[in-house]
Amino acid sequence: MNNMKNYKLTISYDGTRYHGWEAKKEVDTIEGKIENVLSKMCDAPVNINGAGRTDAGVHARGMVANAHMDTSFSEKEIQDYLNRYLPDDISIEEVREASDRFHARLNAVGKWYRYVCYDGPSKPIFERKFVTVLRQPGAVVDIQKMQKAAEYLIGEHDFKSFCGNPKMKKSTVRQVNEIKITRKGGYIFFDFRGKGFLQNMVRILTGTLLEVGYGRKKPEEMMAILDALDRSKAGPTAPAQGLCLMEVKY
Amino acid sequence: MNNMKNYKLTISYDGTRYHGWEAKKEVDTIEGKIENVLSKMCDAPVNINGAGRTDAGVHARGMVANAHMDTSFSEKEIQDYLNRYLPDDISIEEVREASDRFHARLNAVGKWYRYVCYDGPSKPIFERKFVTVLRQPGAVVDIQKMQKAAEYLIGEHDFKSFCGNPKMKKSTVRQVNEIKITRKGGYIFFDFRGKGFLQNMVRILTGTLLEVGYGRKKPEEMMAILDALDRSKAGPTAPAQGLCLMEVKY
Repeated sequence: MNNMKNYKLTISYDGTRYHGWEAKKEVDTIEGKIENVLSKMCDAPVNINGAGRTDAGVHARGMVANAHMDTSFSEKEIQDYLNRYLPDDISIEEVREASDRFHARLNAVGKWYRYVCYDGPSKPIFERKFVTVLRQPGAVVDIQKMQKAAEYLIGEHDFKSFCGNPKMKKSTVRQVNEIKITRKGGYIFFDFRGKGFLQNMVRILTGTLLEVGYGRKKPEEMMAILDALDRSKAGPTAPAQGLCLMEVKY
Repeated sequence: MNNMKNYKLTISYDGTRYHGWEAKKEVDTIEGKIENVLSKMCDAPVNINGAGRTDAGVHARGMVANAHMDTSFSEKEIQDYLNRYLPDDISIEEVREASDRFHARLNAVGKWYRYVCYDGPSKPIFERKFVTVLRQPGAVVDIQKMQKAAEYLIGEHDFKSFCGNPKMKKSTVRQVNEIKITRKGGYIFFDFRGKGFLQNMVRILTGTLLEVGYGRKKPEEMMAILDALDRSKAGPTAPAQGLCLMEVKY
């Protein structure tokens, strides 16, 4: 059994039809699909460690996972095997042998999430599963106010007010390094960079920033929301479909 | 009944789940969906004339249709009503009042179709319903040879060999003004411009050009294929999902 090698996988997926990343019995998940194919390939059970657990319906262009496997396949052969047997909405972008101690979650030093909204005049029919359409007829989203609000959220804070898990027992302190909000035509991009994020945190941050964009909250209210350590003080959780995990850094 | 006005509609759609443009009983078509909504809006049956009839599964970013309607709604109100009641995969990009005599099909002077193929190393998961993935492991598509073959097809020819309707009784002579083939990374774009195209013609042209790209046909064979006036001499009909009607000119 000492032919075990550790592999780093870079993965993209359209999360629309999945119950999230994490393997669960009886429902389709991305982790579950990949483990099934790898277990067939190795003729032995394979467990993979993802860099994070994306929610149901969230997408990825650069999820990273690692897996210890005993296989005679080359990196390219593993990638081709996976891409052949995985469904059309999951793609393995890269397979690289990693050091034995590499762990996709524990060794991650940064993550980039992108949330995309659309408020243009027509309907984004070709991207409709990857953007959140803002349906507030006549309302204008103020990008500058949202950017101002975002400044309050950058840095190390206790983000308990922005955590979707009310039973979270571990620390809810996180460091957000950057929040960049840009508009291109009818599309609004929210780019979040940080070491790690709490459950639903990016979606609650987006939902809260949109409240500012619509003028229902003021930028400076972000301080009081952080201080409250109370989920009910922040804005709604923005829908899953607009969110994509773009990159994990090591 | 003399409040009838003629409107020009510009329409985009993801054709994946439709049985083509043309209204048919008991199946979903784009024309059928739009006529239903307009008929409700006008409280009277409305027929629309499309610039062409796209096949089942073909997409559009610039289909044009016209409709004579008696309505007090403004152009913008008609557009908003349609976008509100049409499904998420059909978008009305523009509504403009047109002259009484404007007819979307009869007045069209040119069409631009784009066919998109993908042969890159990973899987185009986010565009998978709008591109045709070429599955010929190890094979290289020769763009220059396809472009050379395309030169033989440009101009006015009897395109009977490239017509998908074996019972076609009208003239199969058409004029193709431009065929441009370009590669961007793993994507290959085939841009076809001409006054009009026969049934399945763009897909058969693409399928035949790909035969050249793979080295199974020579560019100069295009002459003999045209001369044969025989569908069986051309290449296969490329799948519908890679095709998009980009623009109709007037």
